Amino acid sequence: MKSLASFLHPHAVVFVGATDKEGSVGRAIVENLLDFEGRLYLINPKRKEVLGHPCHASVLDIDQTVDLAVIAIKAELVPETLVQLGKKHIKSAIIISAGFKEVGKEGQELEKKILAIAKEYGIRIIGPNCLGVMSPYSNLNATFAKNMALAGGVGFISQSGALCTSMLDYANDLGIGFSAFISVGSMSDVEFKDCIEYLAHDPKTHSIFLYMETIGNAEEFIRICQSTSFRKPIVAIKPGRSEAAKIAAASHTGSLVGSDTAVEAIFHKGLVLRADTMEEFFDLFIYYSLEETPQGDRIGIITNAGGMGVLTTDAIELNGAKALPPIDVLGDATEAAYRKAFEELKDKNTIDALIVIGSPQSMTDFVKIAEVVQEIQGKIPVCCSFVGRKQTLDGVKFLKKNRIPHFSTPDRAAKILAKIIEHEKKIQLAQKNPCFLGKKLSKEISLPNTKGRTLLTEFESKELLARAGLPVGKTILALSKQEAMEAAEKIGFPCVIKLNSTTISHKSDVGGVKLNLQNTKEVGIAYEDIASKIQTGFEGVTVQKMCNLKGGVELLFGMIRDPMAGPLVSFGSGGISVELYKDVVFAIPPLSPEEALILFEKTKIDHALKGYRNLGPVDKRKLAEFFSLFSLFVASRPEIVELDINPLVALQKEFLILDARIVLKD
Amino acid sequence: MKSLASFLHPHAVVFVGATDKEGSVGRAIVENLLDFEGRLYLINPKRKEVLGHPCHASVLDIDQTVDLAVIAIKAELVPETLVQLGKKHIKSAIIISAGFKEVGKEGQELEKKILAIAKEYGIRIIGPNCLGVMSPYSNLNATFAKNMALAGGVGFISQSGALCTSMLDYANDLGIGFSAFISVGSMSDVEFKDCIEYLAHDPKTHSIFLYMETIGNAEEFIRICQSTSFRKPIVAIKPGRSEAAKIAAASHTGSLVGSDTAVEAIFHKGLVLRADTMEEFFDLFIYYSLEETPQGDRIGIITNAGGMGVLTTDAIELNGAKALPPIDVLGDATEAAYRKAFEELKDKNTIDALIVIGSPQSMTDFVKIAEVVQEIQGKIPVCCSFVGRKQTLDGVKFLKKNRIPHFSTPDRAAKILAKIIEHEKKIQLAQKNPCFLGKKLSKEISLPNTKGRTLLTEFESKELLARAGLPVGKTILALSKQEAMEAAEKIGFPCVIKLNSTTISHKSDVGGVKLNLQNTKEVGIAYEDIASKIQTGFEGVTVQKMCNLKGGVELLFGMIRDPMAGPLVSFGSGGISVELYKDVVFAIPPLSPEEALILFEKTKIDHALKGYRNLGPVDKRKLAEFFSLFSLFVASRPEIVELDINPLVALQKEFLILDARIVLKD
Repeated sequence: MKSLASFLHPHAVVFVGATDKEGSVGRAIVENLLDFEGRLYLINPKRKEVLGHPCHASVLDIDQTVDLAVIAIKAELVPETLVQLGKKHIKSAIIISAGFKEVGKEGQELEKKILAIAKEYGIRIIGPNCLGVMSPYSNLNATFAKNMALAGGVGFISQSGALCTSMLDYANDLGIGFSAFISVGSMSDVEFKDCIEYLAHDPKTHSIFLYMETIGNAEEFIRICQSTSFRKPIVAIKPGRSEAAKIAAASHTGSLVGSDTAVEAIFHKGLVLRADTMEEFFDLFIYYSLEETPQGDRIGIITNAGGMGVLTTDAIELNGAKALPPIDVLGDATEAAYRKAFEELKDKNTIDALIVIGSPQSMTDFVKIAEVVQEIQGKIPVCCSFVGRKQTLDGVKFLKKNRIPHFSTPDRAAKILAKIIEHEKKIQLAQKNPCFLGKKLSKEISLPNTKGRTLLTEFESKELLARAGLPVGKTILALSKQEAMEAAEKIGFPCVIKLNSTTISHKSDVGGVKLNLQNTKEVGIAYEDIASKIQTGFEGVTVQKMCNLKGGVELLFGMIRDPMAGPLVSFGSGGISVELYKDVVFAIPPLSPEEALILFEKTKIDHALKGYRNLGPVDKRKLAEFFSLFSLFVASRPEIVELDINPLVALQKEFLILDARIVLKD
Repeated sequence: MKSLASFLHPHAVVFVGATDKEGSVGRAIVENLLDFEGRLYLINPKRKEVLGHPCHASVLDIDQTVDLAVIAIKAELVPETLVQLGKKHIKSAIIISAGFKEVGKEGQELEKKILAIAKEYGIRIIGPNCLGVMSPYSNLNATFAKNMALAGGVGFISQSGALCTSMLDYANDLGIGFSAFISVGSMSDVEFKDCIEYLAHDPKTHSIFLYMETIGNAEEFIRICQSTSFRKPIVAIKPGRSEAAKIAAASHTGSLVGSDTAVEAIFHKGLVLRADTMEEFFDLFIYYSLEETPQGDRIGIITNAGGMGVLTTDAIELNGAKALPPIDVLGDATEAAYRKAFEELKDKNTIDALIVIGSPQSMTDFVKIAEVVQEIQGKIPVCCSFVGRKQTLDGVKFLKKNRIPHFSTPDRAAKILAKIIEHEKKIQLAQKNPCFLGKKLSKEISLPNTKGRTLLTEFESKELLARAGLPVGKTILALSKQEAMEAAEKIGFPCVIKLNSTTISHKSDVGGVKLNLQNTKEVGIAYEDIASKIQTGFEGVTVQKMCNLKGGVELLFGMIRDPMAGPLVSFGSGGISVELYKDVVFAIPPLSPEEALILFEKTKIDHALKGYRNLGPVDKRKLAEFFSLFSLFVASRPEIVELDINPLVALQKEFLILDARIVLKD
């Protein structure tokens, strides 16, 4: 925390790489730094001064204390400079220079080197390969961008420098200011979580916006985002939904992007609002900077264009909020009609937000309508959409000047409002049901000794799950026909026998499952049939009771490991159709039973859990407790790399794992 | 066709409702009509002249021929005026006046009255309750909008006047022109299909844009759109996806909106490109007006902002097109770097469209980059996105002046391109496989005589389907225990018996299905059990062979009737999970086998048809032939209001309808 403070609010800054060469990055940074309100030192061994400011030959020549260094020199010269910073006790460095891990093997070595030096001297680094940092409240522009950010409430953290400059141009045009503007570049040291943690406690910061290509430490990121989100919104945009984008991102920052399923789960658990497109990102930026968050989901519409009112109604409802019937003030409406419509709307309804639509008609005076909107703002969150170009221009200018959010089409306003409302609901729900992050299973569950074999047999898998407290029916392992028949006598009829294999996981595909066996004779025949079919990996059979599963819902509990996010649990429709319908949702474990219940609702099979035709209803609370237990178990056993329980059959009050597959780390 | 010509290119126009009253609709129309290149007559019994133009007391006073009337007077005076038009042989009337069916019962009566008069005299009507018509190539502005459309290639037809004026303001700002600009209002007579048919043959019209609240005659609409789409794109926006929007639309134009499933099916069959949002509608309008349609799906990206390149890659891929790896010219790129990147991209790849991205960085000169884009345009379809506000302004102005499409964010450009590419593929596919619209079943299938009962029994339903040539297994109706046992002997064991009921359609829910019966004794017990449970509507049982359905895929063939679209057929996953997973798609019948194959691919169960785990593969061609036959059958029997075949089991080469439910018209 302390170290980030000196990145944003330093007393003295040294810039290594000062030059007055026209069009150079170094000159651009000097020009920007000259406005800094604290002390400034410039370093260039070949100059006495740069742009009228004195220049030192080396950091070592500075005789006063300095708390921030900005570095824009050739990559190979950076290590030496860092050593000098270390010697001068300068603990914060912004490395703008490129030429590190993004350029390949040699750069990776260089990056390792600077990190080692930084560690030795306790220096924190932002970058390398970044645009730099702006801190408007300190008049600090430690970047090579043309324009300075205004002072305001947005903390912006970006892994792309170019997105920063576009964002800045938008913001400056709209008069939206920033508390911090950080280009984190390659994130070799300071990463998103550090910046967010700092901004969470910064009273000047009202919202946090992230452009991410990688997440960094996922568990820490989630923990910090979650506690921050209760106080201020965090909005993120992150590419990598498609394979092509993952490849493009890897070549852009030299980082692995990770699976998007994991990203979604991380944002969900961290209560981060994800923008789906750049436009949505900018629109959320505009909205959160100018307006309050609606406290409910009922959105009113006032329009002089009936058709647009109808289209906006669709956009609101399809994005999950509730549209009040639009008030059509008709084409010849004056501003007085808008005012009257709002009064009536407000008197007759509970209304949480308002969209005001204007279409240019012969009588329409957009400035006067904008003035009415200004009266409304403050009473209720409001968005405008004056749909046109030339004729709406003056009205739009008035809105901009008076900090009223305007979107070029009303369905854009509707989508943003609905998205924000949905996010707010999620945050309120999370406040009631604190999440389980970092919780551990109370007892240690030991793994079977497989002597290096990674795929557990069904029998081993079930035994392990039973030890973890999950609902596994009585199962006996039989290694011969005789044992199978004896086991069946113990279990009772009808029974089921299944191949127990060290290598084959899809048993039914190879004829390894025999159902509804009525007596020992049938068991014997079934055993021989399985044994004759399977050449390798045959480890006998398991014998289980044939249950009456009528009305049971087949479910899947799963776990995979993501290289970025760590374990991801899944829940969904089980049985053989699991891959067909892909009715599966993912989450970061562990989950509380309350979180599990919320997860269930995202699946289609949830209808069956509530009771659908002859399926269910089942005790969802109990199921959620099992899923919570399952999630705690997998989160606490890093040796398990893959786990599939499919199906787990849910009867009304009873649950039974029929099959499971566990893969251990190699 | 002839009558629409005089709406757009009349020789002489009479305006009924001329006035010089400040701020009135009548005055606005007169001002607009004064620019008309042909003869103009104004009617107002109380004036001698209006705005310097002579005025007649009545239409009857005009002594020369007139081919178009524009009417903007009180609704109750319209019938009398129409009679006068009839007497003067004026066959085309634009009724701008409101106060008809949208205002309730009285208005509905008035509307009926004017339609009767129009029919009597052979007058065609645009409106009532509309903005009017603009025909730039004839300098005709028969509306009360402030501005006139430019002459150009877009035919725009809208059911909302206010959307017209917004569109016009956009278009005028971008220099985009229209061949026709028609506000159809309530569509009491001239509807979308008439306008489209006219514009299809108008050489000045290059694309057609529709804002629709209702579709009108669906079959005709589809037929006309389909043949038009092979020559010029038709883009539509239509609200009504949500219930709230349907209600809002009904109060707006007094029309029923219909189910959105039907709308989607109509647009699909008519090859109409549907815009999901107003923004998309405007963006498609800009793209089609300024650029060529890409001939393939490979989109290149050149960017000076790596992160935006990655985000754009995602947007392209997620919207179904293919992104080539983005070329990052880096932040300090000049226009020369853009030019070089394009040359390289084009030399190394087959590329069908290009997105050029610019982010404002210290070196970026947007006008010069725009000039490079201008060089590229003509070689390949290109879209730009200069992301910013103030700094990008001059570049964006240059693009606008030179008619190069620009979108504020590159993912918006990506989405539009991908959408257009997907639509183009669909059109090409349809050209290869002409659709079946209007085809009839070759033989007449008679319906059972139910004496007024609307729900057919399973036995009746299956008999009917068998007569239509669909694959129904041998089924015997048994009205007593004895008959059931005898039937079972004939069918063979194991067999199935099922309740045959005139009132109960979900048989398994009431215990009316008994599977896997091994002998006559079991059949007898099963019969008694069913008979004892069912009090009313018991009409015996049907006896069928218990088939080995292992590996069979359970499918659904269905039909419902939509009040707007008529019959809609459905195909999807069958069995009891049909409503759980909702893996069902809808289409307008009849369908050719080729169309059926395309429909199948939209479902998840299609994976099983191709072979998935132990399901399938099945003979899809044969299945498609059955579905085509089914669609022909339902399209030719309007007495059937609902039909569900569920399941139809598809084995490798064999198909079998296990259950069916048919409801006849009351």
